[in-house]
Amino acid sequence: MTGSYEADVTVIGSGSWATAIVKMLSTNASKVCLYVQFEEELKYLKKFHHNQKYLSAVNFSPEKLILTGDINKAIKSAGIIILVTPAAFLKETLSPVKISFKGKTVCSAIKGFIPEDNCIVGEFMHNRYNVPYSDIVIITGPSHAEEVAMEKLTYLTIASQDRVKARNVANLLKNHYLRTILSDDIYGTEYAAVMKNIYAIGAGICIGLGYGDNFLAVLLSNAAMELKTFIDNIHPIDRDIKSSAYLGDLLVTGYSQFSRNRAFGNMIGKGYSVQNALMEMTMVAEGYYAAKGIHKIGSDMNLKIPIAEMVYRILYETVIPSKEVLKLTKILK
Amino acid sequence: MTGSYEADVTVIGSGSWATAIVKMLSTNASKVCLYVQFEEELKYLKKFHHNQKYLSAVNFSPEKLILTGDINKAIKSAGIIILVTPAAFLKETLSPVKISFKGKTVCSAIKGFIPEDNCIVGEFMHNRYNVPYSDIVIITGPSHAEEVAMEKLTYLTIASQDRVKARNVANLLKNHYLRTILSDDIYGTEYAAVMKNIYAIGAGICIGLGYGDNFLAVLLSNAAMELKTFIDNIHPIDRDIKSSAYLGDLLVTGYSQFSRNRAFGNMIGKGYSVQNALMEMTMVAEGYYAAKGIHKIGSDMNLKIPIAEMVYRILYETVIPSKEVLKLTKILK
Repeated sequence: MTGSYEADVTVIGSGSWATAIVKMLSTNASKVCLYVQFEEELKYLKKFHHNQKYLSAVNFSPEKLILTGDINKAIKSAGIIILVTPAAFLKETLSPVKISFKGKTVCSAIKGFIPEDNCIVGEFMHNRYNVPYSDIVIITGPSHAEEVAMEKLTYLTIASQDRVKARNVANLLKNHYLRTILSDDIYGTEYAAVMKNIYAIGAGICIGLGYGDNFLAVLLSNAAMELKTFIDNIHPIDRDIKSSAYLGDLLVTGYSQFSRNRAFGNMIGKGYSVQNALMEMTMVAEGYYAAKGIHKIGSDMNLKIPIAEMVYRILYETVIPSKEVLKLTKILK
Repeated sequence: MTGSYEADVTVIGSGSWATAIVKMLSTNASKVCLYVQFEEELKYLKKFHHNQKYLSAVNFSPEKLILTGDINKAIKSAGIIILVTPAAFLKETLSPVKISFKGKTVCSAIKGFIPEDNCIVGEFMHNRYNVPYSDIVIITGPSHAEEVAMEKLTYLTIASQDRVKARNVANLLKNHYLRTILSDDIYGTEYAAVMKNIYAIGAGICIGLGYGDNFLAVLLSNAAMELKTFIDNIHPIDRDIKSSAYLGDLLVTGYSQFSRNRAFGNMIGKGYSVQNALMEMTMVAEGYYAAKGIHKIGSDMNLKIPIAEMVYRILYETVIPSKEVLKLTKILK
């Protein structure tokens, strides 16, 4: 499978989800190239074969791993590139890239919005690096990295307009604890992955304010309806929003006490200022940036997305969270 | 509102959900008649004004409550009757009834299947007591009784073919912590309330077997799709299965560690026999009976409902739960 490349696949990123993805790949790939941006992390990984900060119980097989701090070498090393940085850092991470992505399958497992460009990763890679949409693959689905590390059964949806490319990526990822579902909906799956973080912040805010499980179920049901409205307007194809890449991803994040986005919302519901809540976060809450981006798109397209709008107002305007939630409670169904 | 009746509304049942419903009603109703089957419970309630076994922190206002152990008197006392017994006990509870339900609004808040008759409560009341479908009202939605007791914001869906009757019942129930949504889907809302208990058993089985949150999200997403398949076949009208009466109710039960049905499934996943798990339950797991009933309907109509079928086989046939779940994992999406 490697062909003229040094590795079967290159992973760009070294957080918890990147670590989980390298673990999954190591069943089927004979060589995985991992790009690590920070020198100290790279040194640690080379010495101890596990990530110091994230999922440190996951041990990498040194004979399967090519570790590099050179992004151009990393991209050159494989025909399949998986991007797994926080969305807000992708531009900076890729800024030293000099070689072309031409002919490569470019996968995003990011689940976030590129803040300055106000677009999803697939669009960004197309616009900035001329990657044709047919070369883009979205890796998504309900997947706490911690459960992948523990080999708990997980389903990933692999979306591409090119079924062969989706299948190639799926074949690299799947193993006894990892099932893959193929899809051609690169826009819908990526937008769903981005939006669910906004709804998880909303869920956190409500829980922080003292709302209970009865209300959470109503909020997330309405979020599922809103997600459908938004995505069907952005890219109107026939899709079942109840399948795991859309509803499943919303549920695993909205119901997880370990979700960064929900934890971030929870702090705000409990009375932290947005700035203080952001400072308390050790990992990026992708929904913070997504809320702003989705607000802009929603406004431009005149879409009714009241839950996402509420989260936007709480994060970016001087409003009182409890009053905003109370207003929302009057229109849910 | 009482008219020629002694009470605005009669509640038949004295479990936790009945207790929560009496609490809700006590904001707007000037008199609520409560039928309590067991003499000792009745005596205790008359003396202490709260339920001994369930939600004992909920205090009833004695001046608003008419307590009776006479089912005929109870039904005679009001024009609106709310049934809130376990489904398996409804027939027995109603067996001494001699007076007619004619002209009364008959509400079911039961969320269960009548085992021997293999039908939902609305159908049973129609078939057995000649209650016209236009007099039937279904009270459903994501609602842990414990949260209603704590006055946590809760949404109930009130379904009737007669909008005026639905509105009358809604007006009795709603208050500062209770919002109501009107619907005309008496079949769909009741079937959803019944089926979600089967899926909660399924969720419990999987969690008991060691599956994690990533899988639970996939299971419940697929359950939402299956629910739509089933209900749309039973009663094909235009409904959004993602609204709170359907998806919301599925989520609050499937994600709740306090759900009896999920707890029942969990024991089976952990290796208890079905008989032992049933014996451990202090309250009825409605899904146990529902699984059998839905299996029959599904088979008769040749419907593809693999999750409900899996739960049925685990509960009623000699199969190995882990093997059944493994088979299921291969077809989820």
